[in-house]
Amino acid sequence: MNPKSPSESLTVLTDLVLPSETNHINNLFGGELLSRMDRAASISAQRHSRNIAVTASVNHVAFTKAILLGSVVTIEAKVSRAFNSSMEVYIDVWVEDRNSGEKTKANEAIYTFVAVNEVGKPVIVPAIIPETELEQERFDGALRRKQLSLLLAGKMKAHDATELKALFV
Amino acid sequence: MNPKSPSESLTVLTDLVLPSETNHINNLFGGELLSRMDRAASISAQRHSRNIAVTASVNHVAFTKAILLGSVVTIEAKVSRAFNSSMEVYIDVWVEDRNSGEKTKANEAIYTFVAVNEVGKPVIVPAIIPETELEQERFDGALRRKQLSLLLAGKMKAHDATELKALFV
Amino acid sequence: MNPKSPSESLTVLTDLVLPSETNHINNLFGGELLSRMDRAASISAQRHSRNIAVTASVNHVAFTKAILLGSVVTIEAKVSRAFNSSMEVYIDVWVEDRNSGEKTKANEAIYTFVAVNEVGKPVIVPAIIPETELEQERFDGALRRKQLSLLLAGKMKAHDATELKALFV
Amino acid sequence: MNPKSPSESLTVLTDLVLPSETNHINNLFGGELLSRMDRAASISAQRHSRNIAVTASVNHVAFTKAILLGSVVTIEAKVSRAFNSSMEVYIDVWVEDRNSGEKTKANEAIYTFVAVNEVGKPVIVPAIIPETELEQERFDGALRRKQLSLLLAGKMKAHDATELKALFV
Amino acid sequence: MNPKSPSESLTVLTDLVLPSETNHINNLFGGELLSRMDRAASISAQRHSRNIAVTASVNHVAFTKAILLGSVVTIEAKVSRAFNSSMEVYIDVWVEDRNSGEKTKANEAIYTFVAVNEVGKPVIVPAIIPETELEQERFDGALRRKQLSLLLAGKMKAHDATELKALFV
Amino acid sequence: MNPKSPSESLTVLTDLVLPSETNHINNLFGGELLSRMDRAASISAQRHSRNIAVTASVNHVAFTKAILLGSVVTIEAKVSRAFNSSMEVYIDVWVEDRNSGEKTKANEAIYTFVAVNEVGKPVIVPAIIPETELEQERFDGALRRKQLSLLLAGKMKAHDATELKALFV
Repeated sequence: MNPKSPSESLTVLTDLVLPSETNHINNLFGGELLSRMDRAASISAQRHSRNIAVTASVNHVAFTKAILLGSVVTIEAKVSRAFNSSMEVYIDVWVEDRNSGEKTKANEAIYTFVAVNEVGKPVIVPAIIPETELEQERFDGALRRKQLSLLLAGKMKAHDATELKALFV
Repeated sequence: MNPKSPSESLTVLTDLVLPSETNHINNLFGGELLSRMDRAASISAQRHSRNIAVTASVNHVAFTKAILLGSVVTIEAKVSRAFNSSMEVYIDVWVEDRNSGEKTKANEAIYTFVAVNEVGKPVIVPAIIPETELEQERFDGALRRKQLSLLLAGKMKAHDATELKALFV
Repeated sequence: MNPKSPSESLTVLTDLVLPSETNHINNLFGGELLSRMDRAASISAQRHSRNIAVTASVNHVAFTKAILLGSVVTIEAKVSRAFNSSMEVYIDVWVEDRNSGEKTKANEAIYTFVAVNEVGKPVIVPAIIPETELEQERFDGALRRKQLSLLLAGKMKAHDATELKALFV
Repeated sequence: MNPKSPSESLTVLTDLVLPSETNHINNLFGGELLSRMDRAASISAQRHSRNIAVTASVNHVAFTKAILLGSVVTIEAKVSRAFNSSMEVYIDVWVEDRNSGEKTKANEAIYTFVAVNEVGKPVIVPAIIPETELEQERFDGALRRKQLSLLLAGKMKAHDATELKALFV
Repeated sequence: MNPKSPSESLTVLTDLVLPSETNHINNLFGGELLSRMDRAASISAQRHSRNIAVTASVNHVAFTKAILLGSVVTIEAKVSRAFNSSMEVYIDVWVEDRNSGEKTKANEAIYTFVAVNEVGKPVIVPAIIPETELEQERFDGALRRKQLSLLLAGKMKAHDATELKALFV
Repeated sequence: MNPKSPSESLTVLTDLVLPSETNHINNLFGGELLSRMDRAASISAQRHSRNIAVTASVNHVAFTKAILLGSVVTIEAKVSRAFNSSMEVYIDVWVEDRNSGEKTKANEAIYTFVAVNEVGKPVIVPAIIPETELEQERFDGALRRKQLSLLLAGKMKAHDATELKALFV
């Protein structure tokens, strides 16, 4: 199984913010954005694995900027690292100014998916080979994040979380 | 006002087909696809004009291939030609095979938008300079399609529809 | 198979414009109207053919008038002409003034449907016999529109598009 | 203020049952039908009163027949009687067989609306003059239903509910 | 089959009012509230019967108070009485003030459900034993409401509607 | 400002899984669950702060169990700890077996909200005093999770993340 680059799973979902997707103060509703990111990220994971991809976890979603009614929102999702049958998908969300066309980063999020076959059994996915500096940085961070999740879930001992431990000692 | 290329208004909307968007025989519902294309095309027209863009007409939407529940659908919209304040937007719709990743053309559509300012008054938009062969072909066709619309609406005489007339005599 | 009149397939869909169906400037969203017209027109085609009817194409939708939030919108769809297994459906859209009750034409659209059986194979549908003057006019226009579509799709030669040719020579 | 006939407020809403509107056993979801009837009935009350009409109560909705995914559903709403500023709207729901075109009664419902002006104050509406036998029957029943509601809400004494009392003594 | 108390079927559905659920004057749309109540009440009936529960009728829904965009709405549904295979579900709707946290009653409604097995055949459900004063009052009223429905539907003679008759003579 | 217990912000959202909320393999769609949890958690944060609460981040959502079409899903959200103007909300998701009534844990999630006033400026919220053992455990964990977030975002040095550091050295 040949490794792939993150760009091979790049998924772009550009869409408007309509009134049916806002909260009562006329911003894109948080739940709606979480849902759009899930759709884009699951396509990205499917493109990397060429299998069904189911959401395993959501982590590190930071809502740093309100997105106004009428905005053009672009979601870009790419697989940042693969571990056996699981894939970390890194999502960038941009908002575009109508007059200047300038894009501003509005959110970042990290979702994890598992590739499964038709009967729901996990299947191995290709490894990731990062190509850009940013992709390398996210690839490296993915291991720390994975150890962290396992540690917090009680599935790994602090002693074995080598990447994390290095931060403290 | 500098002319622009079609690629400057390229808008990509990749999304899943979920059960809430199908008809009773498990295909993407025609109305839902028309709606998604309208959203993508209006963003494309807004990107070209850097103004509000309102749908003026829909023409030449051909549903050549049913799109199944669970599919990944990619809509690509680009402005193909501009006439004063109106823009023809050409839309290509692709469906992706999960196993091979191969994309198949599922639909084509042509929408027309008008750029307006905040009080709804039409404003002039940049001209289009096609770059690829396909863009040139669509640019040329846009004039014939425009004459056709005017002719059918009784706003142009057959004698003046020079592009169309050339097809017959 | 006995021919039918357009009125036998008349379908009326009267509904409100709620906030969930508007764009960010409080008009009925174009995509939502395209979707409503598709639903009404497909019922009309089903009533004419007494079979499953799938959308084949959309043509000549002119958005001539913005429809405001809170409006009452009436969509009227009738089969205007049948060709073997395909049906042209003509759609009129009206907006009603709350105080006077007066109805104003807001849009017109033409959709084409194909009648299919349970396994998706096209089936012959009854012919149309127009009864009113308007129905006759639309019946006549349908042939020109069909030749036009075939011509633009490269499926008919200009020489054979007799109805169209008559307009120019 | 001239009285009106029920037929002047007739509102017809014909629509499909799509998967997004069903429950998990593939019937039209009860809540969705209640919602569609509310939309049709509020238009009917608005047509009668030529004012804003707000839902005051829902009574006597009987779900006598499951409505299957893919059905064509026709809702017909007419004002059956007016009392000062309130209107009783009678709603009939029909399901149409695709092959025969035969319509079967699926549901009946009775909603009450109040006409209000722009600041929400109730306004007087025209009286109803029934024309058909069925309209007369529903007009007569409306008074009994009104007394019943008042009685159950503790706003009328049994002694004064003359129409109802006549049923028992 | 052991009887149950109303509290065993208590179902709480607390949710926001978002713009996609309002009418054009920024109140929770009547149809949306009817739909939410139907969902909560059907869960309540399912909890009481431990079977599939289908909506049989809706009665006595009084919209006494408009519910504003942005409100927190709490729906509480409990089975108030059971008759063989049918269950009356009593629904209370509360709106919460953001600053004080005080809850105000906004609506009451009564829905009836029938418990069915997998092939749609009605099945017997447990009896209800009311525990609080309010539950007892609603339990008693349920019989009057049932006789009333049967009487109005022509399925019971006035002479046999003993509970109702007692009100008048 | 008096501290509050987590139970004072308890928010319960019980609802069905309808076809419009599933993915193409008939499970509750991940994005829809993220959206429902956001609605429930934001009400919980609003109840604790008695102010507007906006989603700041989402962390530690683990999808451990697919939720089937037709299920009854109960979401319970409580504020687990407050830090100045931010609140960690802990969410438990349960699925209920129709026959036995038994509830099974399906998901856990942690969202963070910020309380703001009418002009969007952060405001101080009451402290939390945990009452049960589980509430105490979540209260303690909240500090570790907060340090972790700050550390990963580069807003805190490893040396100062005392709670985390204690895990490793």
